[in-house]
Amino acid sequence: MTDDSRNWGSFTLPGEAGFEDLTLKLAQKWGADVIRDSDGTELSEEIVNAGYRIYSTICIIREHNAWASRHKDKLQQTFLMTSPKTAVANCLTIGLMENFFREQFEINASEAAVKYWQVYDRTMQAEVPAEKWVYEKESESVTIRDIIPWHKYSVSFIAYRIWEEISMYNHTTNHWNKEHLMQIDPIHRETQEYMLHWLDNWCREHKAANVVRFTSMFYNFVWIWGSDERNRYLFTDWGSYDFTISPLALEEFEKKYGYRMTAEDFVNKGKRNVSHMPCDSRKKDWMEFINDFVIDFGKKLIELVHSYGKLAYVFYDDSWIGIEPYNGRFKEFGFDGLIKCVFSGYEVRLCAGAEVETHELRLHPYLFPIGLGGMPTFMEGGDPAADARKYWINVRRALLWEPIERIGLGGYLHLVENFPDFVDFMEEAAKDFRIIKNLHRAGLPYRAKTKVAVLHSWGRLRSWTLSGHFHETYMHDLIHINEALSGLPLDVRFISFEDIKQGALKEADVVINAGYAGSAWSGGDGWKDDEVVELLTKWVWEGGAFIGVNEPSAVEGYDTYFRMAHVLGIDEDTGARVCHGKWTYTVTEEKGLLPEHCFIKARNNLYLTDGKARVLAEENEMPALTVHKFGDGSGIYLSSFEVNPVNTRMLLNLILFGGKEDLAGSYLTDNPLTECAYYPESNTLVVLNNSDTRQNTIIKTGLGNRAISLESYENKILQLE
Amino acid sequence: MTDDSRNWGSFTLPGEAGFEDLTLKLAQKWGADVIRDSDGTELSEEIVNAGYRIYSTICIIREHNAWASRHKDKLQQTFLMTSPKTAVANCLTIGLMENFFREQFEINASEAAVKYWQVYDRTMQAEVPAEKWVYEKESESVTIRDIIPWHKYSVSFIAYRIWEEISMYNHTTNHWNKEHLMQIDPIHRETQEYMLHWLDNWCREHKAANVVRFTSMFYNFVWIWGSDERNRYLFTDWGSYDFTISPLALEEFEKKYGYRMTAEDFVNKGKRNVSHMPCDSRKKDWMEFINDFVIDFGKKLIELVHSYGKLAYVFYDDSWIGIEPYNGRFKEFGFDGLIKCVFSGYEVRLCAGAEVETHELRLHPYLFPIGLGGMPTFMEGGDPAADARKYWINVRRALLWEPIERIGLGGYLHLVENFPDFVDFMEEAAKDFRIIKNLHRAGLPYRAKTKVAVLHSWGRLRSWTLSGHFHETYMHDLIHINEALSGLPLDVRFISFEDIKQGALKEADVVINAGYAGSAWSGGDGWKDDEVVELLTKWVWEGGAFIGVNEPSAVEGYDTYFRMAHVLGIDEDTGARVCHGKWTYTVTEEKGLLPEHCFIKARNNLYLTDGKARVLAEENEMPALTVHKFGDGSGIYLSSFEVNPVNTRMLLNLILFGGKEDLAGSYLTDNPLTECAYYPESNTLVVLNNSDTRQNTIIKTGLGNRAISLESYENKILQLE
Repeated sequence: MTDDSRNWGSFTLPGEAGFEDLTLKLAQKWGADVIRDSDGTELSEEIVNAGYRIYSTICIIREHNAWASRHKDKLQQTFLMTSPKTAVANCLTIGLMENFFREQFEINASEAAVKYWQVYDRTMQAEVPAEKWVYEKESESVTIRDIIPWHKYSVSFIAYRIWEEISMYNHTTNHWNKEHLMQIDPIHRETQEYMLHWLDNWCREHKAANVVRFTSMFYNFVWIWGSDERNRYLFTDWGSYDFTISPLALEEFEKKYGYRMTAEDFVNKGKRNVSHMPCDSRKKDWMEFINDFVIDFGKKLIELVHSYGKLAYVFYDDSWIGIEPYNGRFKEFGFDGLIKCVFSGYEVRLCAGAEVETHELRLHPYLFPIGLGGMPTFMEGGDPAADARKYWINVRRALLWEPIERIGLGGYLHLVENFPDFVDFMEEAAKDFRIIKNLHRAGLPYRAKTKVAVLHSWGRLRSWTLSGHFHETYMHDLIHINEALSGLPLDVRFISFEDIKQGALKEADVVINAGYAGSAWSGGDGWKDDEVVELLTKWVWEGGAFIGVNEPSAVEGYDTYFRMAHVLGIDEDTGARVCHGKWTYTVTEEKGLLPEHCFIKARNNLYLTDGKARVLAEENEMPALTVHKFGDGSGIYLSSFEVNPVNTRMLLNLILFGGKEDLAGSYLTDNPLTECAYYPESNTLVVLNNSDTRQNTIIKTGLGNRAISLESYENKILQLE
Repeated sequence: MTDDSRNWGSFTLPGEAGFEDLTLKLAQKWGADVIRDSDGTELSEEIVNAGYRIYSTICIIREHNAWASRHKDKLQQTFLMTSPKTAVANCLTIGLMENFFREQFEINASEAAVKYWQVYDRTMQAEVPAEKWVYEKESESVTIRDIIPWHKYSVSFIAYRIWEEISMYNHTTNHWNKEHLMQIDPIHRETQEYMLHWLDNWCREHKAANVVRFTSMFYNFVWIWGSDERNRYLFTDWGSYDFTISPLALEEFEKKYGYRMTAEDFVNKGKRNVSHMPCDSRKKDWMEFINDFVIDFGKKLIELVHSYGKLAYVFYDDSWIGIEPYNGRFKEFGFDGLIKCVFSGYEVRLCAGAEVETHELRLHPYLFPIGLGGMPTFMEGGDPAADARKYWINVRRALLWEPIERIGLGGYLHLVENFPDFVDFMEEAAKDFRIIKNLHRAGLPYRAKTKVAVLHSWGRLRSWTLSGHFHETYMHDLIHINEALSGLPLDVRFISFEDIKQGALKEADVVINAGYAGSAWSGGDGWKDDEVVELLTKWVWEGGAFIGVNEPSAVEGYDTYFRMAHVLGIDEDTGARVCHGKWTYTVTEEKGLLPEHCFIKARNNLYLTDGKARVLAEENEMPALTVHKFGDGSGIYLSSFEVNPVNTRMLLNLILFGGKEDLAGSYLTDNPLTECAYYPESNTLVVLNNSDTRQNTIIKTGLGNRAISLESYENKILQLE
């Protein structure tokens, strides 16, 4: 019997000094083998010496205020763009900080920085020559002269970030009242020397720490705060590289790439470049440049940790920029583990797929009074047990399909004292986790034959996630699809347009493209590549299935808005076809395809191209689900996709239908509120009830049908004989 | 006392042979001074000699089947494009007529025509060289060789139109079973000679006809029918010039303009060029070329009519293409009257504003069993009196603001026999019409000071109408706005982007721009002209009001999607700002501005730009109506506009608010279901009840307030003392 089967281990508990009894009691109850500290908590000697392995959290770029105050020119920076302002005469003064949160930013008006500032005529989208503007330090404003009245102007400038964003958030949300932490930039040789020296000291002093848990590396995802409480969060994107710039980095980039990045490359007319939009080659170069640097210097820190006989894990959040688990280079860091905080199934798959020894999930809710969504958690009005179950139901189904080695929690342990149902629930979840983990040891579960490729601009680099958590990206169909896929019995890959040209379709039976027009997920200008359209057309004709959701393959400039309209048999009218007739249709049924109560949100302005697509569902008198035979393959269109258990089964059915597999084949439940996974090596069947009511289901197995009954949210492990 | 005040005259009655008593009885009851024939009816000697003036309808391009059969190469033509078809090998055969209605079209494969055919690779949007394709006459198909497999291909070809579309429609809808009429093309010298000769004969033979009513000139608006009953009307656009082409016209165009129009200029990737989209300079040139020709030859026909002492009126519908009442050249024809069929108020204003002696309205419903919308009218299940009242209520309010000389009806008179309430209603309407007509004789009614300019791509050329009737264009906000404006006490002009550059803003207090992005009504690429944006910005700053509806001034490529966003204070996110924070707001009230029960349909993805716009209404948690102070002027945004009496008053209020006029000033009702007009010269006040219930209202006049009570739909004429 392994440790896990004794219901012990694989669990990381956040300890808390001053609550030693609670720490050790819960370590026992939850079967923890590791105790960690958290941002804001410490471990006491008593905890450290209680016989558990110890994770120590460090954030290498903050908690160095003494050094930072002496080296304010080594603080991290960003480009900011003022809101465009209309000139009512031929000169105009723009206050740079008017719209920005002064506690977060400080103008960098050094000669090296001002070199990168840009003033733009936003009416003409043309840069205003430097001779025409001057910065006035006292008023923190730029005055522009000899300009065209009635045009709009903006100033793009460089600012130091003087308050590390995660501590700024915790201050604000959880009413911390500590010193504002600053973040130092390792791009400078002096900062690197300081960090190496500091880490060396730290390792020497923290003998008990077995694992150094980096939170995370150097650069935070972007989070720009505004001056007005009516619009505090001006911009936030978990996947953006906006917080990586500095005059030094920009200069080194220019040396390496032979061209200069400009402020405009980052501010992009004030829209910036969100992860949800396709990126150009300049941004790709910049990302590569930053990854090179983060790996290069990150490796030195990890080697130092290793030299003390400690392991190095990285928490994949906060200052994660430059750590791309799916750019093919993640292994170069030398990390021993990757820790991912999870609300959702897709986050489990994101973690599980990274090339690293140990995959660990930090479960939610975080032990904090207030959750990430701003709602009460471990305080009056909160129900952390319900929250934990909600997330666990998402996580559990994804755990069935790829192995994860560890789970854990984070935060202030003492907060759980008033929530005994949470404490009990975690014990159950940990137990279930260990059972599932063990099943994986014998081998992967049985999967359908149909291989799925999700096609978008980022391809493999943004496997599973779009940009951050579900609640930040719920408006995109693809996150719903990824979440559904994360627990389905399918091989799933994420491919780019370039991958298609490199032959990726050979490995795919079904390609999914989902998103609104112009987005990275739909693909935007990626669809202007005729070769991609050609290859997909041929592949469908020869038997593939193209599933398009919302505005798949949409791009302006062609005879149809959806470039795959000839395959889908449906297209969207952007206005030019308002005088064209539309094919009438009747909704037809495809037996067994659509589970009862599935739901598809309507889109407007859709029209059938050749009238041959079968309309299987409609909403608001518009086709909502169509199937169009194209050669030996098919085009399947969904006007939207919203994840829930029934719609998840609908998606699975559509994929199996596209892959010409049996919708009622082996190891599929006949009740969409339940799911199952079969592990051939151990001949074990796991059945989940994803609903809050009792459910019955029948599963076809190699040994005949099995009828199973499950309590609400129950999972059952059946040994098939 | 004039004829009109004796409740007689200004009325055109459709007579019908075989129903002489009915004809004369109704002529008496309705006060007709004119009797006309209609398409499908004739007048008998008894009617012609009864002492009425006689209008005789002629359609110069049809009813010439004998000549047409002998000159099939002189039939009218059009470009058609086949649906793009995917090549699964390196050659492909496309049947040209597969998608088209064979009773309407016949391929013109003459050498002169084939010269203009084009085969396109629709995947690459590139023309396939003529060497690569061949037309096979027997199979009516084009075979293309040496092409790229998996690309889509289309053939654009020229087809004769072998069934005149209006008779085709009447056959189909009203089950006519007559010979299919063909339409002959006057572009050919021989056709012109034939027509002049025929008209000369006709005039000589129709001595009793006082007025020749042309229905209309030569070229019908486009109406392309498909082969499949599930998609019969492939394309129809009342404003399109698609039915004007022929190899000869194309050649003459090339001689005159120095460049050649191609099939692609017309078929435009299969989208064709609808009136609702902005047009390019090539289409403008073609329109000019056709107008030149229609005026040139049309004038000869009119002069011939005049030479017989007859008047020439033109019915502005059907084959109206090339007769533009607002291109500044309409007078050149020499018409004596313009007849417009009307469902709506804007159609009244369209007619009233044309430079011609006599303006006549043909009221609806047409005396036909089935109405234009396909619903029963003068048959079981129809209620023609209710229909007539519905249209009359729209027409009546517009009649108050510009003089119209005549009204009338058309169709089969005998159909009214079973509908005595219709007969009575028409008597009432004719009486009311004559009273209003008389009021105009003394001078125009009192108007608010605020001058309105509606800005769109077509400008003056498409004053009041977009393209056809309301029920064909209801999906465009602007037709709702035009309909509202048609009965409001305002000076209204329609201006183009070029007009703004020529100083048109000097004459405007309020500019309205309304439509979806890219449409001719929103303006599309017209907004890429920086000078237009500059001039409008300055004009608003100095006191103007810019009212934007739906997606005003929207165009891609700038910092904001609405180019006037800096003036409006609101913009639309097309996806790139999904990670940007949004200003929160609270809905505030502007006293007296929004009438109770006004309604604005929501739009998604709107955001406040600088947070300073006041949100006066919201829908679906999105701003629906905002007001943004900009210098001395303001930007006013409405997410949609749907015409009804309450919303019409809302629009008036917004215009007066933008123009800084009193919302409760003189000669305005205080009840939005009522409206009024004051005629200073005769000191007369007309008050309308637009609702189906009794209404009370108080009107501020120069002589104090007047309280008025009106029965449902009543109008009252008050002499102020």
